[in-house]
Amino acid sequence: MSAPNSPSPSDSPFRLARRCERMNPSVLREILKVTERQGIISLAGGLPSPDLFPVDAIREAARQVLADAPREALQYGPSEGYRPLREWIASRLSADGMQVDADAVLITSGSQQGLDLVAKVMIDAGSAVQVESPTYLGALQAFTPFEPVYQALRSDAEGPDPEALSASARFAYLVPSFQNPAGRMIPAARREAIARAAVAKGAVIVEDNPYGELWYDSAPPRPIAASAPTHTIYLGSLSKVLSPGLRLGYIVAPPAIRPKLLQAKQAADLHTSGLSQRIAASAIATGLLDAHLPRVRSHYRTRRDAMVQALERHFAGMADWAVPGGGMFLWMTLRDPVDAVALLNEAVEAGVAFVPGRAFFVDDDPASVAGGIADRSIRLSFVTATPEQIDKAVATLADVVSRRRDRRAA
Amino acid sequence: MSAPNSPSPSDSPFRLARRCERMNPSVLREILKVTERQGIISLAGGLPSPDLFPVDAIREAARQVLADAPREALQYGPSEGYRPLREWIASRLSADGMQVDADAVLITSGSQQGLDLVAKVMIDAGSAVQVESPTYLGALQAFTPFEPVYQALRSDAEGPDPEALSASARFAYLVPSFQNPAGRMIPAARREAIARAAVAKGAVIVEDNPYGELWYDSAPPRPIAASAPTHTIYLGSLSKVLSPGLRLGYIVAPPAIRPKLLQAKQAADLHTSGLSQRIAASAIATGLLDAHLPRVRSHYRTRRDAMVQALERHFAGMADWAVPGGGMFLWMTLRDPVDAVALLNEAVEAGVAFVPGRAFFVDDDPASVAGGIADRSIRLSFVTATPEQIDKAVATLADVVSRRRDRRAA
Repeated sequence: MSAPNSPSPSDSPFRLARRCERMNPSVLREILKVTERQGIISLAGGLPSPDLFPVDAIREAARQVLADAPREALQYGPSEGYRPLREWIASRLSADGMQVDADAVLITSGSQQGLDLVAKVMIDAGSAVQVESPTYLGALQAFTPFEPVYQALRSDAEGPDPEALSASARFAYLVPSFQNPAGRMIPAARREAIARAAVAKGAVIVEDNPYGELWYDSAPPRPIAASAPTHTIYLGSLSKVLSPGLRLGYIVAPPAIRPKLLQAKQAADLHTSGLSQRIAASAIATGLLDAHLPRVRSHYRTRRDAMVQALERHFAGMADWAVPGGGMFLWMTLRDPVDAVALLNEAVEAGVAFVPGRAFFVDDDPASVAGGIADRSIRLSFVTATPEQIDKAVATLADVVSRRRDRRAA
Repeated sequence: MSAPNSPSPSDSPFRLARRCERMNPSVLREILKVTERQGIISLAGGLPSPDLFPVDAIREAARQVLADAPREALQYGPSEGYRPLREWIASRLSADGMQVDADAVLITSGSQQGLDLVAKVMIDAGSAVQVESPTYLGALQAFTPFEPVYQALRSDAEGPDPEALSASARFAYLVPSFQNPAGRMIPAARREAIARAAVAKGAVIVEDNPYGELWYDSAPPRPIAASAPTHTIYLGSLSKVLSPGLRLGYIVAPPAIRPKLLQAKQAADLHTSGLSQRIAASAIATGLLDAHLPRVRSHYRTRRDAMVQALERHFAGMADWAVPGGGMFLWMTLRDPVDAVALLNEAVEAGVAFVPGRAFFVDDDPASVAGGIADRSIRLSFVTATPEQIDKAVATLADVVSRRRDRRAA
């Protein structure tokens, strides 16, 4: 069997599209497979806690859908999605400050598919796409096959510099609330400034908001899409609030771009599972989330706090981090020069896994130079392990870092 | 609101990818929306009869999955798919003459997604792609955004000419069993010849088999993939045998191309709904299909026969057709010069809908010239209407065609 990128004509007849050259197997994926083995505490993945899945409500919703409307749930459905679910999403977003009509909502197979559809419709080979740096790895994976040229957005602690937005890019991809991986939230004033700059410059924002409901201190400000609705494509997800296994996300887009996104959706998979859509709609129609989300927030807040306390205990003086106000991840930058990929191998030996930061940076970013913060940063997830496991894992990791430091000093 | 293909800079900031120029809103879709209104008998769509969904089995499977493994079913899952479902598919295909290991099976969100992933991984702008002519419209919709140049495969009544296969095309797309739209089945000897030619020439076959289980006279011969496994990507679906609303399909591909298809799947939607996959696996594990498929075949056979009898009664001398041995569609070519799109408008007025043939042809085909068989052909579905409705609809359609003929004569 030949390497996937260069099948030799003698043993494989497959000639791959040029875009495949940029679709590489994730080295991380390979390393992280190791972390699935027994005895390793993983702070790597972003798996929501299954303790929080509203199993009873979903079970009852599935029962009801398959009792009341089995023929409809199991039949082909509209590419736009199941109308009552679209209506519910529109009304929920409207409560968050956006003005959204159900017609504006396109249901996708998870918000990952939203990223794929946006990329397909908007990116030509060589198109500039602006991204935060670090940015969400899954977005890079969705965009990269369409061969964009990434530009790292100039940023400070509050988020991207509005002046850095450029109409010469096809869009700027932002995760304003509790970003993956950095945990950073863009405050209200900066959001307004970004919205104003986008409209003034004729730039497009792709606003991805999977974590907005997962806030632990105070709710995030209204989305950028609320202030620049004509210039923003908004992506949302039910994965973090209901269940990822249902694979339900959505795109809210201005009228000018909707028909193309719909055609792309139709070509990609005709429509999202009607059974999943109806189960979700039935489960949330009864106000489930009003009771469920506070429970989710409380559960994750405890773990976020456990991680922050563990870091203060074990990493003081060795690393810098910001306390995330929500989401699933804490971003930490080690002070010593260290290659976090090498560190991961040692950490896994010691029983702890995390994700090295480099994967979240695009090459364009100065932080990406060897020895820069891209190499020294790591992403820690606090949503999967228990508070006790988190404390133990952070202590172990600190021990691994200290031993490296001692070795270097010796 | 501006037209989606040419947003003027003054009112829309969105600049679309070049591929959007070829993604056009389906004229048919617009016409066929009309057919959803009351009182029209539609022979247009390919909706499986909901009477045939195994609702009790799916209900029980859903209950069981959500009782036994709710946390797993509702969590993120592997991009490859749910292992027991992959194993079941592998063993079923192996019984059909392919030698398939579960590792070779990639679960997709319907086989439409299989088409999208294959296109993404194999088509560059300008790549030649060979298709039957007529061919499946949904495949053209999946391939076209990747900007291939289509070549119509030279064919006869038994299917494509093996000599027409070319290694200079990225692949040849074939639906060997009960093709949509033509209902044509490629017999065993031609399949073998195609397989041999593909291997000899180094050509790649994409074999799409959504209808193979829907046979009404005798089971189709073994797939081309069974004879040319190293040169064939095989696509299958559970939509026609279980339920389309679950959105479950699969790709079986040789090792050389698997890693890229998997990366494309991951970028497209991470994975297919775990709940859908587990419900399907649970429903079929008990041997459901052994009892269910004969019921499905018998139900559709009655309707296929009703349509053939109605055509013999009402269309003798006016049109030519071949009796499909399976699938969902009958392909009819009118003898009089007629534009089937104009005919559709009249037919809808009279209460009947069908799909004009032109949409299924690529421009490259000589049949596509004005007045050629592309214009005079229509696709009739026999799976949605009752036998009585089919007879009435065919009679009405014959009446519309006769009246046109009389008008022309007058």
